[in-house]
Amino acid sequence: MITRMSELFLRTLRDDPADAEVPSHKLLIRAGYVRPVAPGLYTWLPLGLRVLRKIEKIVREEMVAIGGQEILFPALLPKAPYETTNRWTEYGDGVFRLKDRRGNDYMLGPTHEEFFTLTVKGEYSSYKDFPLLMFQIQTKYRDEARPRAGILRGREFIMKDSYSFDVDDAGLKTAYHAHREAYQNMFKRMAIRYVIVSAVSGAMGGSASEEFLAESEIGEDTFVRCVESGYAANVEAVVTAVPEARPAEEVAGLPPATVHDTGDTPTIATLVEWANSAGLGREITAADTLKNVLLKTRVPGGEWELLAIGVPGDREVDDKRLGAALEPAEYALLDDADFARYPFLKKGYIGPKGLLANGVRYLVDPRVVDGTAWITGADETGKHVVGLVAGRDFVADGTIEAAEVRDGDLSPDGAGPLVSARGIEIGHIFQLGRKYTDAFAADVLGEDGKPVRLTMGSYGVGVSRLVAVIAEQQHDELGLRWPASVSPFDVHVVIANKDAQARAGAQELARDLDRLGLEVLLDDRTASPGVKFKDAELLGVPWIVVVGRGWADGVVELRNRFTGEKREIAADGAVADIAAALTP
Amino acid sequence: MITRMSELFLRTLRDDPADAEVPSHKLLIRAGYVRPVAPGLYTWLPLGLRVLRKIEKIVREEMVAIGGQEILFPALLPKAPYETTNRWTEYGDGVFRLKDRRGNDYMLGPTHEEFFTLTVKGEYSSYKDFPLLMFQIQTKYRDEARPRAGILRGREFIMKDSYSFDVDDAGLKTAYHAHREAYQNMFKRMAIRYVIVSAVSGAMGGSASEEFLAESEIGEDTFVRCVESGYAANVEAVVTAVPEARPAEEVAGLPPATVHDTGDTPTIATLVEWANSAGLGREITAADTLKNVLLKTRVPGGEWELLAIGVPGDREVDDKRLGAALEPAEYALLDDADFARYPFLKKGYIGPKGLLANGVRYLVDPRVVDGTAWITGADETGKHVVGLVAGRDFVADGTIEAAEVRDGDLSPDGAGPLVSARGIEIGHIFQLGRKYTDAFAADVLGEDGKPVRLTMGSYGVGVSRLVAVIAEQQHDELGLRWPASVSPFDVHVVIANKDAQARAGAQELARDLDRLGLEVLLDDRTASPGVKFKDAELLGVPWIVVVGRGWADGVVELRNRFTGEKREIAADGAVADIAAALTP
Repeated sequence: MITRMSELFLRTLRDDPADAEVPSHKLLIRAGYVRPVAPGLYTWLPLGLRVLRKIEKIVREEMVAIGGQEILFPALLPKAPYETTNRWTEYGDGVFRLKDRRGNDYMLGPTHEEFFTLTVKGEYSSYKDFPLLMFQIQTKYRDEARPRAGILRGREFIMKDSYSFDVDDAGLKTAYHAHREAYQNMFKRMAIRYVIVSAVSGAMGGSASEEFLAESEIGEDTFVRCVESGYAANVEAVVTAVPEARPAEEVAGLPPATVHDTGDTPTIATLVEWANSAGLGREITAADTLKNVLLKTRVPGGEWELLAIGVPGDREVDDKRLGAALEPAEYALLDDADFARYPFLKKGYIGPKGLLANGVRYLVDPRVVDGTAWITGADETGKHVVGLVAGRDFVADGTIEAAEVRDGDLSPDGAGPLVSARGIEIGHIFQLGRKYTDAFAADVLGEDGKPVRLTMGSYGVGVSRLVAVIAEQQHDELGLRWPASVSPFDVHVVIANKDAQARAGAQELARDLDRLGLEVLLDDRTASPGVKFKDAELLGVPWIVVVGRGWADGVVELRNRFTGEKREIAADGAVADIAAALTP
Repeated sequence: MITRMSELFLRTLRDDPADAEVPSHKLLIRAGYVRPVAPGLYTWLPLGLRVLRKIEKIVREEMVAIGGQEILFPALLPKAPYETTNRWTEYGDGVFRLKDRRGNDYMLGPTHEEFFTLTVKGEYSSYKDFPLLMFQIQTKYRDEARPRAGILRGREFIMKDSYSFDVDDAGLKTAYHAHREAYQNMFKRMAIRYVIVSAVSGAMGGSASEEFLAESEIGEDTFVRCVESGYAANVEAVVTAVPEARPAEEVAGLPPATVHDTGDTPTIATLVEWANSAGLGREITAADTLKNVLLKTRVPGGEWELLAIGVPGDREVDDKRLGAALEPAEYALLDDADFARYPFLKKGYIGPKGLLANGVRYLVDPRVVDGTAWITGADETGKHVVGLVAGRDFVADGTIEAAEVRDGDLSPDGAGPLVSARGIEIGHIFQLGRKYTDAFAADVLGEDGKPVRLTMGSYGVGVSRLVAVIAEQQHDELGLRWPASVSPFDVHVVIANKDAQARAGAQELARDLDRLGLEVLLDDRTASPGVKFKDAELLGVPWIVVVGRGWADGVVELRNRFTGEKREIAADGAVADIAAALTP
């Protein structure tokens, strides 16, 4: 079908909308793809909806290809199952809640683990029914604190969420890897540049959860990667490259720890200054000191407990990494009242020995391996200890991945330095295991006649967000540029000649392209060629055919929106030439 | 693609669900098409979703065929525009409302007139941009008091809503009639039996609003029609066939009205008994009496006022018709306190003369034409008047369409009797006019350079409801039966033979049918042939191919689910025979 711009519901805007911050947001509004209705709520106008549907189709095809069966849950969901898993409370302000006319509680579903689990439990009862993989492409809701960047982070959005159910871990791994490949296929088909990053540290098995991040400077997620090995991880999930422990014979040769009067040296900087003036026989840096950070932590429903974290003095504790490492416990820094309560805590002079002697839980950065010697607090105001050796002079309660990650840090595989970059989460795959099947006692009869608890994976793709991600990655200074697989049209025919014969010829050309099965946008408006060219660049259809002044000489112009290349082709036989150019 | 029942997420149920009342609800659940999540909230399982998507596709195609442009609004909508039109209040308990984390009010949209109007106003400014016709296929919400009958009346459902915008009434009429035809086409493609009924009386122009009702005994809407002329209307919209007024010379010959002591005759039955014993010279029936019903009415925000309605004594006042006739005013019957307040109202003996003398607004049934003579109250307890002639002895303030409609009543076109039936609303087309464009001052520049207020139509189709409507109309005692256009599959191949060669042959047959582009459901389960046949009948794919005992003799069986016809066809060449049978 030919879409005529004289009839298309579209107004392009000359200026950027006032509140738009990122390029994709500006351009999708200027080009008439979406319109805001309220913060984080957008209307898909005809062009935007066409792109959205093409992305949905690719996602659906790749899910079906791995055996996914499509179903569709309501978005309006009753409270009870979310109470069973405690998520009714855990979601906090992040979801929309409402009551019906009878006063019953409902949530606008942000994700559907509970209901998929209940549905599978309701229908199936034997191991023979598995493996099972179901998905939906559905409108979801989150009451974001700060809806931003247009459809990149909306409050109503479209997601593909899928769930795998298996009777054993091997089945879960198979489903997980099938998703991983399906996601790679779908993002490749959309020409998206992305990385797959570990989303949790190796403690849980390395690949239990990975995120697909589209590379983008405006992304909210920071990740690091190693160019040499391809290792990539969320900042939260980066595993520290641990130096080998010093051999015992080497440690035996180390001098004993000595306590020094260091004067007023409550900070790392002042301590380093003291050390370099104390004649310790070598240049001391912050990395030689051990900084002990005091926190209190609390598991949900529990009491506050002290926690001390020891990190090399040249690194800060990273909030995100600390939060991820302590989850589900919450934490807070100690305030003055807390310090007053524990007089053994000498602020600025806290050391491992005092912490351990007073029963404070003490976790250290993985770099603090056995045999490393540190300058650290001596638990008396104005005093530090030099040459305190881990494993010899103190034994921490464990390690914690909480220190900041820096560009140039060694990749955990040792292959090279880590470099940080920003990305937008477009997919997430997660081996959930039995969290939800335990909550609902989702058992089936096993091959041996005994009940088997199902194991589960959950997998998401931000379908509507992908429209903005592609716009973000592919746009240039002139406007949007759509990869052919998701472009609202295959070809954009611009009539840039008022001559009746040229107009008729353009219409004929559009009809011939349509007959070939191509989706044609025909600019048949009475506007000037300049306005039409600008709009064509803004709208971003990858191929533009201009029926202009050349028509009299029997030529039309074919433009490639990505490369900017223009070439004249004979009007006679143009259809075949255009079709050939469009064939990848 | 072949869908294998050994892998399909499906469990059919032997028994009807306990709370299901109507056949479509029972069967859609038993056949595994949908599952309840909460009252009025359903999950679409794979088979149900396939039917739903096919219906969506037909609706979309017919909307595009009349020039509809598809867009998609959020379902979560801010309060402000609904306040402008007063619908935030008017919807009452019928919608879901919620607040976001900032305390702002939102509604889950039941329909989108406000937002379409605002969007068109926002983008367009010239008469040249019109006509314009936009639609969406969207999830909608209504907080039904009594969600019932499964997906026939859910609280979350899918609708196609479209809106036409024009600069003049002729344009609106064109858009309205285009929709009327598009709806006829789509319902025909789905093989739905339906009638188009007037939804409002002729007062507004006859065709300003029509409903498409699917014929169904379990429908909530009652309508009447005249077989002879094809006239059909909602009960609310039926226009009474009015007898001609009696010529003045005939009226002049009528005897004067006479007041009689009628004793204790406060009801029509006792009055008729009296009349037939009083020797009035002819057989009297209730239709000869004039019953006066007292109400109080109030326009929104106004005061209660008395209203009397006079109807022939053999008819009741119909609540729905009365409500529609008085809308937007509300009404209530008079209680004893009201009667006490107006001593001139002698209950059981109220007559036109007393009402009119006391300034009570008095509306009569259209059958009370000038020259008709009535037995009615004489405004004194125990007294009635005989031979009171309309137009001579009293002049009512007007007529009202409030009397019940009965089978056998004359069609307003005089062509024959009316017969009542029940239906399910599947579509509604409505010439809204300027209600919403006035509310938002949606003007564009006219051809003469002056502002033109847009005029608007709104049009709905209950997309998800259609799944149930088709199930309701087409099912038989064995299960569902789907018209080919909406069936989840084109053909259902049942392997009813354990022989390895027969199984392989059935798989091969399924593959060949798939290669022809047919959607094939293959029952490759290990269940018994009896179970498989029962399931095939329940699921309702229109063509069933059985690879059974005949395989050894080189035949398979082709069954037509609608006619029940079975015939043997040669296994060799079966694909061509099946394809031929499936071609309409």
